[in-house]
Amino acid sequence: MIPSDLKKQIEFIIEIDKVKQIFRQTRLFDNSRYENDAEHAWHLALMAITFEKYVNFPVDLLKVIKMVLIHDIVEIDAGDTFLYADEEQLKQKEINEKKAAERIFGILSNDVGNELKNLWEEFEKRQTPEAKFAAALDRMEPILQNSKTKGHAWQKHSVKKSQVIKANKQKISEGSESLWEYIESVIDNCVKEGYLKED
Amino acid sequence: MIPSDLKKQIEFIIEIDKVKQIFRQTRLFDNSRYENDAEHAWHLALMAITFEKYVNFPVDLLKVIKMVLIHDIVEIDAGDTFLYADEEQLKQKEINEKKAAERIFGILSNDVGNELKNLWEEFEKRQTPEAKFAAALDRMEPILQNSKTKGHAWQKHSVKKSQVIKANKQKISEGSESLWEYIESVIDNCVKEGYLKED
Repeated sequence: MIPSDLKKQIEFIIEIDKVKQIFRQTRLFDNSRYENDAEHAWHLALMAITFEKYVNFPVDLLKVIKMVLIHDIVEIDAGDTFLYADEEQLKQKEINEKKAAERIFGILSNDVGNELKNLWEEFEKRQTPEAKFAAALDRMEPILQNSKTKGHAWQKHSVKKSQVIKANKQKISEGSESLWEYIESVIDNCVKEGYLKED
Repeated sequence: MIPSDLKKQIEFIIEIDKVKQIFRQTRLFDNSRYENDAEHAWHLALMAITFEKYVNFPVDLLKVIKMVLIHDIVEIDAGDTFLYADEEQLKQKEINEKKAAERIFGILSNDVGNELKNLWEEFEKRQTPEAKFAAALDRMEPILQNSKTKGHAWQKHSVKKSQVIKANKQKISEGSESLWEYIESVIDNCVKEGYLKED
Protein backbone atom coordinates (compact mmCIF):
# COMPACT_ATOMS: atom_id res chain seq x y z
CA MET A 1 0.00 0.00 0.00
CA ILE A 2 1.25 3.48 -0.83
CA PRO A 3 2.03 5.25 2.48
CA SER A 4 -0.27 8.26 2.95
CA ASP A 5 2.54 10.69 3.86
CA LEU A 6 4.77 9.69 0.93
CA LYS A 7 3.40 12.51 -1.22
CA LYS A 8 4.93 15.14 1.11
CA GLN A 9 8.25 13.35 1.02
CA ILE A 10 8.28 13.19 -2.77
CA GLU A 11 7.42 16.91 -2.81
CA PHE A 12 10.48 17.56 -0.58
CA ILE A 13 12.75 15.47 -2.82
CA ILE A 14 11.60 17.42 -5.87
CA GLU A 15 11.81 20.81 -4.10
CA ILE A 16 15.45 20.32 -3.09
CA ASP A 17 16.41 19.74 -6.72
CA LYS A 18 16.65 23.56 -6.88
CA VAL A 19 19.89 23.34 -4.89
CA LYS A 20 21.53 22.23 -8.16
CA GLN A 21 20.79 25.67 -9.64
CA ILE A 22 22.45 27.71 -6.88
CA PHE A 23 25.95 28.62 -7.94
CA ARG A 24 28.77 29.44 -5.57
CA GLN A 25 31.66 31.91 -5.86
CA THR A 26 34.24 29.15 -6.29
CA ARG A 27 34.96 27.11 -9.37
CA LEU A 28 35.54 23.41 -10.05
CA PHE A 29 39.15 22.26 -9.57
CA ASP A 30 39.75 22.36 -13.33
CA ASN A 31 38.45 25.97 -13.40
CA SER A 32 35.89 25.10 -16.12
CA ARG A 33 32.82 26.56 -14.37
CA TYR A 34 31.30 27.57 -11.02
CA GLU A 35 30.31 24.87 -8.54
CA ASN A 36 26.71 24.51 -7.40
CA ASP A 37 25.44 23.81 -3.89
CA ALA A 38 24.52 20.14 -4.51
CA GLU A 39 27.99 19.36 -5.85
CA HIS A 40 29.54 21.24 -2.94
CA ALA A 41 27.48 19.27 -0.40
CA TRP A 42 28.41 15.96 -2.07
CA HIS A 43 32.08 16.91 -1.95
CA LEU A 44 31.95 17.88 1.74
CA ALA A 45 30.36 14.51 2.56
CA LEU A 46 33.25 12.74 0.83
CA MET A 47 35.70 14.97 2.67
CA ALA A 48 34.03 14.05 5.97
CA ILE A 49 34.57 10.35 5.19
CA THR A 50 38.15 10.90 4.00
CA PHE A 51 39.32 13.25 6.77
CA GLU A 52 37.41 11.80 9.75
CA LYS A 53 40.63 10.59 11.38
CA TYR A 54 42.07 14.12 11.62
CA VAL A 55 39.20 15.62 13.59
CA ASN A 56 40.17 17.02 17.04
CA PHE A 57 37.58 14.87 18.86
CA PRO A 58 35.42 11.81 18.15
CA VAL A 59 32.39 12.58 15.98
CA ASP A 60 29.21 10.80 14.93
CA LEU A 61 30.07 10.56 11.21
CA LEU A 62 26.46 9.96 10.11
CA LYS A 63 25.44 13.19 11.80
CA VAL A 64 28.30 15.12 10.16
CA ILE A 65 27.36 13.76 6.74
CA LYS A 66 23.67 14.60 7.18
CA MET A 67 24.68 18.12 8.24
CA VAL A 68 26.89 18.82 5.25
CA LEU A 69 24.36 17.29 2.84
CA ILE A 70 21.61 19.68 3.99
CA HIS A 71 23.55 22.76 5.18
CA ASP A 72 22.91 24.83 2.03
CA ILE A 73 19.32 23.77 1.28
CA VAL A 74 18.10 27.04 2.86
CA GLU A 75 19.77 28.88 -0.04
CA ILE A 76 16.85 27.79 -2.26
CA ASP A 77 14.99 30.73 -0.69
CA ALA A 78 17.84 32.79 0.78
CA GLY A 79 20.43 32.61 -2.02
CA ASP A 80 24.21 32.23 -1.68
CA THR A 81 25.92 34.88 0.46
CA PHE A 82 29.63 35.33 -0.15
CA LEU A 83 31.83 34.46 2.85
CA TYR A 84 33.36 37.95 2.84
CA ALA A 85 30.02 39.81 2.85
CA ASP A 86 29.57 42.78 5.22
CA GLU A 87 27.86 42.63 8.60
CA GLU A 88 24.50 43.98 7.42
CA GLN A 89 24.38 41.35 4.65
CA LEU A 90 25.26 38.57 7.11
CA LYS A 91 22.50 39.66 9.49
CA GLN A 92 19.89 39.64 6.72
CA LYS A 93 21.19 36.22 5.60
CA GLU A 94 20.50 34.80 9.08
CA ILE A 95 16.89 36.02 9.05
CA ASN A 96 16.24 34.76 5.51
CA GLU A 97 17.81 31.36 6.14
CA LYS A 98 15.78 30.73 9.29
CA LYS A 99 12.56 31.35 7.39
CA ALA A 100 13.78 29.12 4.57
CA ALA A 101 14.57 26.26 6.97
CA GLU A 102 11.06 26.45 8.40
CA ARG A 103 9.49 26.30 4.96
CA ILE A 104 11.68 23.70 3.24
CA PHE A 105 12.22 21.14 6.02
CA GLY A 106 8.60 21.84 7.01
CA ILE A 107 7.43 20.29 3.74
CA LEU A 108 8.20 16.86 5.24
CA SER A 109 5.88 17.52 8.24
CA ASN A 110 7.42 14.58 10.12
CA ASP A 111 10.26 13.56 12.43
CA VAL A 112 12.79 13.46 9.57
CA GLY A 113 11.88 17.07 8.72
CA ASN A 114 12.38 18.09 12.36
CA GLU A 115 15.66 16.21 12.54
CA LEU A 116 16.99 17.97 9.44
CA LYS A 117 15.88 21.40 10.65
CA ASN A 118 17.58 20.77 14.01
CA LEU A 119 20.74 19.59 12.26
CA TRP A 120 20.77 22.76 10.18
CA GLU A 121 20.44 24.88 13.35
CA GLU A 122 23.17 22.86 15.04
CA PHE A 123 25.44 23.41 12.04
CA GLU A 124 24.81 27.17 12.14
CA LYS A 125 25.59 27.42 15.88
CA ARG A 126 28.92 25.55 15.54
CA GLN A 127 28.96 24.35 19.15
CA THR A 128 28.97 20.55 18.90
CA PRO A 129 31.89 18.39 17.67
CA GLU A 130 29.90 17.45 14.55
CA ALA A 131 29.05 21.06 13.72
CA LYS A 132 32.68 22.12 14.23
CA PHE A 133 33.98 19.40 11.91
CA ALA A 134 31.31 20.20 9.30
CA ALA A 135 32.20 23.92 9.46
CA ALA A 136 35.90 23.11 9.03
CA LEU A 137 35.17 21.11 5.86
CA ASP A 138 32.87 23.86 4.56
CA ARG A 139 35.72 26.38 4.92
CA MET A 140 38.39 24.07 3.61
CA GLU A 141 36.91 23.22 0.21
CA PRO A 142 36.87 26.79 -1.22
CA ILE A 143 40.51 27.31 -0.18
CA LEU A 144 41.53 24.14 -2.01
CA GLN A 145 39.48 25.26 -5.02
CA ASN A 146 41.06 28.73 -5.00
CA SER A 147 44.51 27.15 -4.79
CA LYS A 148 43.82 25.22 -8.03
CA THR A 149 42.08 28.06 -9.93
CA LYS A 150 44.73 30.78 -9.43
CA GLY A 151 42.66 32.23 -6.58
CA HIS A 152 39.61 32.86 -8.76
CA ALA A 153 37.15 33.96 -6.05
CA TRP A 154 39.82 35.84 -4.08
CA GLN A 155 40.90 37.79 -7.15
CA LYS A 156 37.33 38.51 -8.22
CA HIS A 157 36.43 39.96 -4.82
CA SER A 158 39.89 41.48 -4.02
CA VAL A 159 40.21 39.33 -0.91
CA LYS A 160 43.51 39.67 1.01
CA LYS A 161 45.45 37.07 2.99
CA SER A 162 44.50 38.56 6.38
CA GLN A 163 40.80 38.21 5.48
CA VAL A 164 41.27 34.56 4.50
CA ILE A 165 43.05 33.87 7.80
CA LYS A 166 40.42 35.76 9.82
CA ALA A 167 37.50 33.98 8.13
CA ASN A 168 38.96 30.48 8.26
CA LYS A 169 41.69 29.91 10.86
CA GLN A 170 39.47 29.56 13.91
CA LYS A 171 36.72 27.69 12.09
CA ILE A 172 39.02 25.11 10.54
CA SER A 173 41.39 24.64 13.49
CA GLU A 174 38.45 24.21 15.89
CA GLY A 175 37.48 21.15 13.85
CA SER A 176 40.93 19.87 12.99
CA GLU A 177 44.33 21.26 13.93
CA SER A 178 46.03 18.97 11.39
CA LEU A 179 43.83 20.12 8.53
CA TRP A 180 44.32 23.76 9.48
CA GLU A 181 48.11 23.30 9.51
CA TYR A 182 47.89 21.88 6.01
CA ILE A 183 45.52 24.63 4.80
CA GLU A 184 47.85 27.27 6.23
CA SER A 185 50.64 25.90 4.05
CA VAL A 186 48.29 25.99 1.04
CA ILE A 187 47.45 29.65 1.75
CA ASP A 188 51.15 30.55 2.08
CA ASN A 189 51.81 28.88 -1.24
CA CYS A 190 48.96 30.82 -2.87
CA VAL A 191 50.57 34.07 -1.71
CA LYS A 192 53.90 32.93 -3.15
CA GLU A 193 52.24 32.08 -6.48
CA GLY A 194 50.48 35.45 -6.58
CA TYR A 195 46.95 34.00 -6.30
CA LEU A 196 46.33 35.83 -3.01
CA LYS A 197 47.61 39.30 -2.03
CA GLU A 198 49.40 40.08 1.23
CA ASP A 199 47.88 43.11 2.98
CA MET B 1 52.12 18.64 12.24
CA ILE B 2 50.87 17.92 8.74
CA PRO B 3 50.05 14.18 8.54
CA SER B 4 52.36 12.44 6.07
CA ASP B 5 49.56 10.63 4.20
CA LEU B 6 47.36 13.72 3.84
CA LYS B 7 48.78 14.45 0.40
CA LYS B 8 47.23 11.24 -1.01
CA GLN B 9 43.88 12.10 0.51
CA ILE B 10 43.92 15.61 -0.93
CA GLU B 11 44.78 14.05 -4.31
CA PHE B 12 41.72 11.78 -4.00
CA ILE B 13 39.45 14.71 -3.08
CA ILE B 14 40.67 16.64 -6.13
CA GLU B 15 40.46 13.59 -8.45
CA ILE B 16 36.81 12.91 -7.62
CA ASP B 17 35.88 16.47 -8.64
CA LYS B 18 35.68 14.98 -12.17
CA VAL B 19 32.40 13.28 -11.18
CA LYS B 20 30.79 16.74 -11.57
CA GLN B 21 31.58 16.61 -15.31
CA ILE B 22 29.91 13.26 -16.00
CA PHE B 23 26.42 13.86 -17.32
CA ARG B 24 23.57 11.39 -17.09
CA GLN B 25 20.70 10.61 -19.47
CA THR B 26 18.12 12.19 -17.20
CA ARG B 27 17.42 15.87 -16.66
CA LEU B 28 16.81 18.05 -13.61
CA PHE B 29 13.20 18.13 -12.42
CA ASP B 30 12.64 21.51 -14.11
CA ASN B 31 13.97 20.04 -17.38
CA SER B 32 16.55 22.85 -17.72
CA ARG B 33 19.60 20.61 -18.27
CA TYR B 34 21.09 17.13 -17.74
CA GLU B 35 22.03 16.03 -14.24
CA ASN B 36 25.61 15.12 -13.37
CA ASP B 37 26.84 12.22 -11.24
CA ALA B 38 27.75 14.34 -8.18
CA GLU B 39 24.28 15.91 -8.07
CA HIS B 40 22.71 12.48 -8.56
CA ALA B 41 24.72 11.01 -5.67
CA TRP B 42 23.77 13.92 -3.41
CA HIS B 43 20.12 13.44 -4.25
CA LEU B 44 20.22 9.70 -3.56
CA ALA B 45 21.77 10.37 -0.14
CA LEU B 46 18.89 12.72 0.71
CA MET B 47 16.44 10.11 -0.57
CA ALA B 48 18.06 7.50 1.69
CA ILE B 49 17.51 9.80 4.69
CA THR B 50 13.94 10.67 3.66
CA PHE B 51 12.77 7.17 2.69
CA GLU B 52 14.63 5.08 5.29
CA LYS B 53 11.39 4.14 7.04
CA TYR B 54 9.99 2.44 3.93
CA VAL B 55 12.84 -0.02 3.45
CA ASN B 56 11.85 -3.72 3.64
CA PHE B 57 14.40 -4.48 6.38
CA PRO B 58 16.53 -2.55 8.89
CA VAL B 59 19.58 -0.94 7.29
CA ASP B 60 22.76 0.74 8.47
CA LEU B 61 21.95 4.21 7.11
CA LEU B 62 25.56 5.45 7.23
CA LYS B 63 26.58 2.54 5.03
CA VAL B 64 23.75 3.22 2.55
CA ILE B 65 24.72 6.89 2.35
CA LYS B 66 28.41 6.11 1.83
CA MET B 67 27.43 3.67 -0.93
CA VAL B 68 25.26 6.08 -2.85
CA LEU B 69 27.81 8.88 -2.47
CA ILE B 70 30.56 6.82 -4.11
CA HIS B 71 28.63 4.47 -6.41
CA ASP B 72 29.31 6.41 -9.62
CA ILE B 73 32.90 7.52 -8.94
CA VAL B 74 34.12 4.69 -11.21
CA GLU B 75 32.52 6.54 -14.13
CA ILE B 76 35.44 9.00 -14.04
CA ASP B 77 37.32 6.32 -16.02
CA ALA B 78 34.47 4.12 -17.30
CA GLY B 79 31.91 6.77 -18.36
CA ASP B 80 28.14 6.64 -17.92
CA THR B 81 26.43 3.58 -19.42
CA PHE B 82 22.71 3.99 -20.11
CA LEU B 83 20.50 1.65 -18.10
CA TYR B 84 18.99 0.19 -21.28
CA ALA B 85 22.35 -0.64 -22.92
CA ASP B 86 22.80 -4.04 -24.61
CA GLU B 87 24.48 -7.06 -23.01
CA GLU B 88 27.86 -6.57 -24.67
CA GLN B 89 27.99 -2.97 -23.48
CA LEU B 90 27.04 -4.00 -19.94
CA LYS B 91 29.80 -6.64 -19.88
CA GLN B 92 32.43 -4.14 -20.99
CA LYS B 93 31.11 -1.69 -18.41
CA GLU B 94 31.75 -4.21 -15.63
CA ILE B 95 35.37 -4.72 -16.69
CA ASN B 96 36.04 -0.99 -17.04
CA GLU B 97 34.43 -0.12 -13.73
CA LYS B 98 36.42 -2.72 -11.79
CA LYS B 99 39.66 -1.28 -13.13
CA ALA B 100 38.46 2.23 -12.32
CA ALA B 101 37.61 1.28 -8.72
CA GLU B 102 41.13 -0.13 -8.24
CA ARG B 103 42.72 3.04 -9.54
CA ILE B 104 40.54 5.72 -7.95
CA PHE B 105 39.93 4.30 -4.46
CA GLY B 106 43.55 3.07 -4.63
CA ILE B 107 44.75 6.69 -4.60
CA LEU B 108 43.94 6.78 -0.87
CA SER B 109 46.22 3.78 -0.16
CA ASN B 110 44.64 3.34 3.28
CA ASP B 111 41.76 1.70 5.14
CA VAL B 112 39.27 4.35 3.99
CA GLY B 113 40.22 3.58 0.37
CA ASN B 114 39.68 -0.15 0.99
CA GLU B 115 36.38 0.50 2.72
CA LEU B 116 35.09 2.58 -0.20
CA LYS B 117 36.24 0.01 -2.77
CA ASN B 118 34.49 -2.73 -0.79
CA LEU B 119 31.33 -0.62 -0.50
CA TRP B 120 31.34 -0.10 -4.26
CA GLU B 121 31.66 -3.86 -4.83
CA GLU B 122 28.89 -4.53 -2.32
CA PHE B 123 26.65 -2.03 -4.12
CA GLU B 124 27.34 -3.72 -7.46
CA LYS B 125 26.50 -7.20 -6.10
CA ARG B 126 23.17 -6.07 -4.60
CA GLN B 127 23.08 -8.83 -1.97
CA THR B 128 23.04 -7.00 1.36
CA PRO B 129 20.11 -4.94 2.76
CA GLU B 130 22.12 -1.73 2.31
CA ALA B 131 23.01 -2.51 -1.32
CA LYS B 132 19.38 -3.40 -2.09
CA PHE B 133 18.09 -0.14 -0.64
CA ALA B 134 20.81 1.87 -2.44
CA ALA B 135 19.93 0.15 -5.74
CA ALA B 136 16.23 0.92 -5.23
CA LEU B 137 16.97 4.62 -4.77
CA ASP B 138 19.32 4.62 -7.78
CA ARG B 139 16.48 3.24 -9.95
CA MET B 140 13.80 5.42 -8.44
CA GLU B 141 15.33 8.86 -9.08
CA PRO B 142 15.40 8.64 -12.93
CA ILE B 143 11.75 7.51 -13.01
CA LEU B 144 10.73 10.52 -10.93
CA GLN B 145 12.83 12.75 -13.20
CA ASN B 146 11.28 11.26 -16.34
CA SER B 147 7.82 11.77 -14.87
CA LYS B 148 8.52 15.51 -14.48
CA THR B 149 10.31 16.00 -17.84
CA LYS B 150 7.72 14.44 -20.13
CA GLY B 151 9.73 11.21 -20.22
CA HIS B 152 12.82 12.91 -21.66
CA ALA B 153 15.26 9.97 -21.47
CA TRP B 154 12.56 7.41 -22.39
CA GLN B 155 11.54 9.39 -25.46
CA LYS B 156 15.14 10.01 -26.52
CA HIS B 157 16.01 6.31 -26.38
CA SER B 158 12.57 4.97 -27.44
CA VAL B 159 12.19 3.06 -24.19
CA LYS B 160 8.87 1.22 -23.74
CA LYS B 161 6.88 0.53 -20.56
CA SER B 162 7.82 -3.17 -20.45
CA GLN B 163 11.51 -2.22 -20.47
CA VAL B 164 11.02 0.20 -17.60
CA ILE B 165 9.22 -2.48 -15.59
CA LYS B 166 11.84 -5.11 -16.40
CA ALA B 167 14.76 -2.85 -15.48
CA ASN B 168 13.26 -1.48 -12.28
CA LYS B 169 10.50 -3.59 -10.70
CA GLN B 170 12.68 -6.21 -9.04
CA LYS B 171 15.42 -3.79 -8.08
CA ILE B 172 13.12 -1.26 -6.44
CA SER B 173 10.72 -3.72 -4.78
CA GLU B 174 13.63 -5.74 -3.35
CA GLY B 175 14.60 -2.60 -1.43
CA SER B 176 11.14 -1.27 -0.68
CA GLU B 177 7.74 -2.68 -1.58
CA SER B 178 6.05 0.61 -0.62
CA LEU B 179 8.29 2.69 -2.82
CA TRP B 180 7.79 0.29 -5.73
CA GLU B 181 4.04 0.48 -5.35
CA TYR B 182 4.27 4.26 -5.56
CA ILE B 183 6.68 4.17 -8.52
CA GLU B 184 4.37 1.77 -10.35
CA SER B 185 1.59 4.35 -10.07
CA VAL B 186 3.98 7.01 -11.40
CA ILE B 187 4.83 4.81 -14.39
CA ASP B 188 1.14 4.16 -15.12
CA ASN B 189 0.50 7.88 -15.03
CA CYS B 190 3.40 8.51 -17.44
CA VAL B 191 1.79 6.08 -19.91
CA LYS B 192 -1.52 7.92 -19.50
CA GLU B 193 0.17 11.28 -20.15
CA GLY B 194 1.95 9.91 -23.22
CA TYR B 195 5.47 10.25 -21.72
CA LEU B 196 6.06 6.50 -21.99
CA LYS B 197 4.82 4.15 -24.72
CA GLU B 198 2.99 0.89 -24.08
CA ASP B 199 4.50 -2.01 -26.07
